[in-house]
Amino acid sequence: MSRDPGTVFIGRKPAMSYVLAVITSFSSGNAKEITLKARGQAITTAVDTAEIVRSRFLKDLKISKISIGTEELPPREGENRSRMVSTMEISMAKE
Amino acid sequence: MSRDPGTVFIGRKPAMSYVLAVITSFSSGNAKEITLKARGQAITTAVDTAEIVRSRFLKDLKISKISIGTEELPPREGENRSRMVSTMEISMAKE
Repeated sequence: MSRDPGTVFIGRKPAMSYVLAVITSFSSGNAKEITLKARGQAITTAVDTAEIVRSRFLKDLKISKISIGTEELPPREGENRSRMVSTMEISMAKE
Repeated sequence: MSRDPGTVFIGRKPAMSYVLAVITSFSSGNAKEITLKARGQAITTAVDTAEIVRSRFLKDLKISKISIGTEELPPREGENRSRMVSTMEISMAKE
């Protein structure tokens, strides 16, 4: 995963934290497109974030791309099998 | 939400239950396209289901469409505000 300013990594915080991050990125910089990246249970938060941003705050945003995938994570301590986890990316752009 | 045979509603069961439903639909009928529909926390399960079907079982499937949205649910008993919940639809089709 890259660290460019057009990317917001979704974790375990409430969706509103990420909504704020997206709004800040769009309003502070030259970002024309922001991509939300999430894994596992955070996928739901990513969808919530995109929907809240679009319906309440930046109504001219369009979802430009949605993709899903699978990532292999190293095994947890005490386990010996690597884990497969689902990933999702949602890109939003100004028209 | 419609009840046509090309739709699989994702709920609280483990992803493997829905994987089986998708495989059955594709192999038993004339379905060329199956759409997974999920709300809230089940969105993660929908992504897991799509990824497991595609990587382990039906490798010729392509994700034909992914969309997200918001649905308004009636308030829970004792509350007086309706709840907004995120939704997701993933369509998978044979090539």
